Amino acid sequence: MAKIKTIGILTSGGDAPGMNAAIRAVTRSGICNGFEVKGIYRGFDGLINNEIRPFTTENVSGIIMQGGTILKSARSKGFMTPEGRQKAYENLRNEGIGALVVIGGNGSLSGARIFAEEFDFCCVGLPGTIDNDLYGTDSTIGYDTTMNTIVECVDRIRDTAQSHERIFFVEVMGRDAGFLAQNSAIASGAEAAIIPEDSTDVDQLARFMERGIRKSKKSCIVIVSESPKCGALYYAERVRKEFPNYDVRVSILGHLQRGGRPTAHDRILASRTGVGAVEAIMQGQRNIMVGIRNNEIVYVPFSDAIRTDKPLDMKLIKVLDELSI
Amino acid sequence: MAKIKTIGILTSGGDAPGMNAAIRAVTRSGICNGFEVKGIYRGFDGLINNEIRPFTTENVSGIIMQGGTILKSARSKGFMTPEGRQKAYENLRNEGIGALVVIGGNGSLSGARIFAEEFDFCCVGLPGTIDNDLYGTDSTIGYDTTMNTIVECVDRIRDTAQSHERIFFVEVMGRDAGFLAQNSAIASGAEAAIIPEDSTDVDQLARFMERGIRKSKKSCIVIVSESPKCGALYYAERVRKEFPNYDVRVSILGHLQRGGRPTAHDRILASRTGVGAVEAIMQGQRNIMVGIRNNEIVYVPFSDAIRTDKPLDMKLIKVLDELSI
Amino acid sequence: MAKIKTIGILTSGGDAPGMNAAIRAVTRSGICNGFEVKGIYRGFDGLINNEIRPFTTENVSGIIMQGGTILKSARSKGFMTPEGRQKAYENLRNEGIGALVVIGGNGSLSGARIFAEEFDFCCVGLPGTIDNDLYGTDSTIGYDTTMNTIVECVDRIRDTAQSHERIFFVEVMGRDAGFLAQNSAIASGAEAAIIPEDSTDVDQLARFMERGIRKSKKSCIVIVSESPKCGALYYAERVRKEFPNYDVRVSILGHLQRGGRPTAHDRILASRTGVGAVEAIMQGQRNIMVGIRNNEIVYVPFSDAIRTDKPLDMKLIKVLDELSI
Amino acid sequence: MAKIKTIGILTSGGDAPGMNAAIRAVTRSGICNGFEVKGIYRGFDGLINNEIRPFTTENVSGIIMQGGTILKSARSKGFMTPEGRQKAYENLRNEGIGALVVIGGNGSLSGARIFAEEFDFCCVGLPGTIDNDLYGTDSTIGYDTTMNTIVECVDRIRDTAQSHERIFFVEVMGRDAGFLAQNSAIASGAEAAIIPEDSTDVDQLARFMERGIRKSKKSCIVIVSESPKCGALYYAERVRKEFPNYDVRVSILGHLQRGGRPTAHDRILASRTGVGAVEAIMQGQRNIMVGIRNNEIVYVPFSDAIRTDKPLDMKLIKVLDELSI
Repeated sequence: MAKIKTIGILTSGGDAPGMNAAIRAVTRSGICNGFEVKGIYRGFDGLINNEIRPFTTENVSGIIMQGGTILKSARSKGFMTPEGRQKAYENLRNEGIGALVVIGGNGSLSGARIFAEEFDFCCVGLPGTIDNDLYGTDSTIGYDTTMNTIVECVDRIRDTAQSHERIFFVEVMGRDAGFLAQNSAIASGAEAAIIPEDSTDVDQLARFMERGIRKSKKSCIVIVSESPKCGALYYAERVRKEFPNYDVRVSILGHLQRGGRPTAHDRILASRTGVGAVEAIMQGQRNIMVGIRNNEIVYVPFSDAIRTDKPLDMKLIKVLDELSI
Repeated sequence: MAKIKTIGILTSGGDAPGMNAAIRAVTRSGICNGFEVKGIYRGFDGLINNEIRPFTTENVSGIIMQGGTILKSARSKGFMTPEGRQKAYENLRNEGIGALVVIGGNGSLSGARIFAEEFDFCCVGLPGTIDNDLYGTDSTIGYDTTMNTIVECVDRIRDTAQSHERIFFVEVMGRDAGFLAQNSAIASGAEAAIIPEDSTDVDQLARFMERGIRKSKKSCIVIVSESPKCGALYYAERVRKEFPNYDVRVSILGHLQRGGRPTAHDRILASRTGVGAVEAIMQGQRNIMVGIRNNEIVYVPFSDAIRTDKPLDMKLIKVLDELSI
Repeated sequence: MAKIKTIGILTSGGDAPGMNAAIRAVTRSGICNGFEVKGIYRGFDGLINNEIRPFTTENVSGIIMQGGTILKSARSKGFMTPEGRQKAYENLRNEGIGALVVIGGNGSLSGARIFAEEFDFCCVGLPGTIDNDLYGTDSTIGYDTTMNTIVECVDRIRDTAQSHERIFFVEVMGRDAGFLAQNSAIASGAEAAIIPEDSTDVDQLARFMERGIRKSKKSCIVIVSESPKCGALYYAERVRKEFPNYDVRVSILGHLQRGGRPTAHDRILASRTGVGAVEAIMQGQRNIMVGIRNNEIVYVPFSDAIRTDKPLDMKLIKVLDELSI
Repeated sequence: MAKIKTIGILTSGGDAPGMNAAIRAVTRSGICNGFEVKGIYRGFDGLINNEIRPFTTENVSGIIMQGGTILKSARSKGFMTPEGRQKAYENLRNEGIGALVVIGGNGSLSGARIFAEEFDFCCVGLPGTIDNDLYGTDSTIGYDTTMNTIVECVDRIRDTAQSHERIFFVEVMGRDAGFLAQNSAIASGAEAAIIPEDSTDVDQLARFMERGIRKSKKSCIVIVSESPKCGALYYAERVRKEFPNYDVRVSILGHLQRGGRPTAHDRILASRTGVGAVEAIMQGQRNIMVGIRNNEIVYVPFSDAIRTDKPLDMKLIKVLDELSI
């Protein structure tokens, strides 16, 4: 295996706050350790379309606090085909790129894994997703920022909920994983959370709500994970039918959950794992995701990282339950 | 006319950030000037249902920075009937309240006006609405905070819009008045605003968007005033049909626009007009709204304040147009 | 007088949030109206040293929400000399610049005024200063953002002041003008403000504080305008001596007051006055500052704008006094 | 040992954001599990002076998002004497309190430990300190909020530092532990950190700064842990002497670092450990601090928690070093 001289970086999938801090860290640590660094635009599509440019330390100046990703992101259909991946491989070869750092979530790291095996190519992943659904790392880049964005929004909604004594169903991201919903419910002092990991029937919900309504404050907030069928609108409709004298409202937080300045936590996670990715390449590691567990850098094989059933701590349900009395 | 010894305060209609600062100002300035002060809960409904409690300076301690209203708010059906207003009047008499301060928007001040005329009662209004649609005051309590909330949200949405090169239609409050949409579009650097005061056809919108899309950044944000028929969803659907290769998304900001800590501007506006309301009562003023114009306290007769056509400065459309090139 | 084809822009003096929004507005409105636009770096020094570059609409893309100034700023000694101004004039001529937009405060607009008279050159000013001490405009670019920064900081300090029942002297900017101190005291619910416009002796201060201390909350916050001799440290020392059993602390907010994302208000003020500056140039106006009064664009002769005694509304002292009981 | 029926709570030492969330969690979880709960005001002093009141779920309503501590805090001299602790013990007995939850930092938990041993009393600690210097827990309540407050402040300072091309020494809390300085330097993209764990001479600092100054941005930010002798003012003075042509400024963040709304992370940490404290009491645990390690609740004996040498990860110095090139 030839010595790696050039590192390519891309961001892929849904964007997450802190991706820019990760790009900065890989670029600067790479250059500091003698590599050339190239930025690949628009995710795997840009790899296929050869949207690749050399990066200097200045390309990443002043981006540590910016949301989004200066490299743009996309979900690539082309990369799902062997022809697409072949083209991507040729472009990497032509550019002299010997290692590819992929910043993204489950789908993106799955793509990196397939590519790495197909072409025996050095791929290193960074956990970049607001959903926190990657194994082997205590949290993912973007999750903490999104948590704080949700909590700020719910703090605002509570102001008006209490003033008008209303019931709000607030829908948050996390279609397949309830981390955001469950934890933001605890952090915002919500009365209940409805998450994919735990079935909630309307009777059960009604019990929560009546408990909330009996309290002096007479308003109630329920956080709901987004869902094609059973989102906030669905539950609001059900409650309206069964309790016609409640004043029920819905708020769907939507895409604003993806943006914003990354928190201190996400900037540090991105910086440390970015430096860790360059170290991993220097150590000859490959086809691993760099994470942090118990405050230490860890290398997690792709196959472990992308297991799709990262468990939610069910004790959190008890915490929410006891604290919303 | 007997000397006024006791002032009653209520908040009515949609809640607005800064209402608590106004309650605090009326209470403290009232007490400081020798009045007794009583808080009336749940707007005009609370007046009818006699939900009235004496207030001390401590009741309003630590609330200047809180969103919502500690007095709760509601839209009252009872107060629209002569019987409801009669009951309200009797409760005021029984409580010894000689002047009523109403903090609210158009509908609430209209209610106060009718009541004032019917019973020859001293009513003083404070402009409490996020919509900025009251005449005679440069801005209303809550408007500046909501503007900043919207701009923060659009800043976040822009991060993800640029990362994915998407078109976003962002729906904001202001069903009957485009102040929020037009000004937040300027402040957030949006490409266009769709407001009730100015008809927008899809061709026109397409021109704006193509201009935006031709630019290097390739993303585009359009702010839309909420509307039962022609909101953000409507325009997104139209654009999707005519430009099927654009990636179009919708974000409806909803109730989070009502909450949050009031800005410095709204706290000062609320504090100054609250003190102004007590002064007005002491001067024998009645049936006026206290506002600020050109940095001076003004008394605006209710009949002027609630005219429903406060004009939007159409030069702002030119500002937005020139700056989104 | 030859037709003006090219507009130069610079920022000068202490930086203020919203300067970038103003640079963007002048640049885009200028280009939109057929002018060439050139950015001048590092204030008047850059004019003397010929640090001038052509600007396109893209140079100002994405800066509306950034604090500071992409054109950098400085206080120029060279421009105070006739030789410096002569050099500046020659550079403007060589670059073909026919109108100069200066974004800055009192000192910067004074410099622009002298230059304009000396060389009969078209200078247009924008009010860019956090101090709000320019005549003829209701507020200056940066003032509203700084007000909100101060209020957020004081909100935080109050948390710890109340927890420990301490007295805090918080020093804010505004050496020559008490706008920031007086208004932030009202907005943050402080017990008193010490401002340059109004002498405060320690006895008087003690009365305020004792009134605060008698209240249930037992903590007290006094906002102090910065001052070489009588700043927060001075008053804290005096109070410590006279009331040795109070727990007195000082917080000097310092330079963080200058930075941060501009508020909606400052972005709109900067955008509207920036468009107004280009309009003024097209109308043949010169040697004026563009401001906003009573929500309308106004042109204020430099000689009026820079009068150094913009009055603070003394009624605000009554507002603060009544509300801190 | 008699069955514990009543839990007392107090906050002690420097206040930290999230203490209120912890008070809420202990109170509600306690009541939910059949205990009576009593709040003790002003730390150990309040225990000695018998400032103890019964708490209901409503006493802690709406406080999860408030900075500071509703129970007030103080550093108690009386509790350092055997007589003081004897009085405290008698008051606990008279109030029927069988378990004491102490929310505080190193000094407070040391006090709890001595008391627990002296009177064989059930004490449970929660890690409430912004300094993150307690063993056995991944982070402490308040640390994450303070980190974000510092990073927001440094983001603001960078705006003005870059505009004026200045060097800033920013002093942050953490007299004995460099967690705040080191990590906030990484998160804010600072050029260097000066921490108690690692000696920094001026030559070394000069190397860092010259590296920063050579870069295009020409401004430089150094984060300094507060120190009686070698704080930000000391280093600024040294640098001014050796590099007289640099424009050097100092910003001391001070007490605003203690306040503010707690972040999502701190609210969750406080909520989970608060519930954990009640569980610990029910399990018969005593004289332990409840922490979270690796996302699991842990019980840490007081003697371990208060060891005064929690190590800073020295690899972080490498991260900062590589990323500031």
